[in-house]
Amino acid sequence: METLDFIFDFGSPNAYLVHKVLPEFKLVNNIHINYIPCLLGGIFKQTNNRSPMEAFANILGKSDYENLEMKRFIEKHKINNYNPNPFFPVNTLTLMRGAIVAHRENWLDNYIEAGFHHMWENPKNMGDPEVYKNAMLSSGFNSSDLLNKIQTNEVKEQLITNTRRAVEKGVFGVPTFFLEDQMFFGKERLTQIEAILTD
Amino acid sequence: METLDFIFDFGSPNAYLVHKVLPEFKLVNNIHINYIPCLLGGIFKQTNNRSPMEAFANILGKSDYENLEMKRFIEKHKINNYNPNPFFPVNTLTLMRGAIVAHRENWLDNYIEAGFHHMWENPKNMGDPEVYKNAMLSSGFNSSDLLNKIQTNEVKEQLITNTRRAVEKGVFGVPTFFLEDQMFFGKERLTQIEAILTD
Repeated sequence: METLDFIFDFGSPNAYLVHKVLPEFKLVNNIHINYIPCLLGGIFKQTNNRSPMEAFANILGKSDYENLEMKRFIEKHKINNYNPNPFFPVNTLTLMRGAIVAHRENWLDNYIEAGFHHMWENPKNMGDPEVYKNAMLSSGFNSSDLLNKIQTNEVKEQLITNTRRAVEKGVFGVPTFFLEDQMFFGKERLTQIEAILTD
Repeated sequence: METLDFIFDFGSPNAYLVHKVLPEFKLVNNIHINYIPCLLGGIFKQTNNRSPMEAFANILGKSDYENLEMKRFIEKHKINNYNPNPFFPVNTLTLMRGAIVAHRENWLDNYIEAGFHHMWENPKNMGDPEVYKNAMLSSGFNSSDLLNKIQTNEVKEQLITNTRRAVEKGVFGVPTFFLEDQMFFGKERLTQIEAILTD
């Protein structure tokens, strides 16, 4: 079975939208999806990039068009639970370090569902440690234990390493995918990846 | 028969690539393509936008990825004659005014072929009036007559009007398409438009 690497950060609405589509994409294309937690803020810093919201802020019509394409994607894929996060852009450092903990302990899948839920379905300011703690508790996780483990050097270092490796491979934003060495950026690329897989 | 409006400027390599794909797209989807000449420089000025080359210049990896997607598009559609224009970005004011003349005289199709050819197949600095004159002559057009007509107010005004109308409808770059009131930006959108047409 082939593997599609998915470079993600919970802070990106387009990463959320892609996440909602991946279960069906996985089934249809018989492919394994490998979620790789990276810090989008770190990627932006290392590549001198910015969020579309910032980059397009002063360009007439461009943000409106971005929103239109999000709406089209949501309608096409019948995504029902998306809610813009009023605290955007959210500092995702704790959230992403938590993903490293969950990955090391083999419960990343559950953590990912919770992380995206609290960012883009029932959105809150997940950059606030207290909000994070309560949200993760409400999702059935041991928040105190999670917050302790997040402080360890191993966890911090792993997120830095994931992020640096992504940038070294050419990543400048999320969602980004790798099919072996072929890189694809943006939610629109799933169609292209599917065409390659079914070729 | 439905009509797809295509907002274009010869100066955009992605407009060229789309132009090469449209004949087949037209046949497959039984649609009329309405080429609307606009001045990309004017669109950028009015929307505070810039060319991808400028906007991505300082973002690590982003231009490389843009080039990769151009390469993929070229390979997918078996485009054989594309040659980057060493004079990019070329001032397209004369070229686009010429398109207005050709449109008024009902030979826009031939002019479009010539314009794209001299920009992206056998590329030259088409912003230079002397180069433009010789290129159009070599394509079988009456260059002197064309250059005279380009100087008329009606022609200048029409290009300004086309450009302003495009911006008013939300255009911030090319290639941009309109299927009735639905706007699509970028060469990747043809797949989306096709999906709508065949729905």
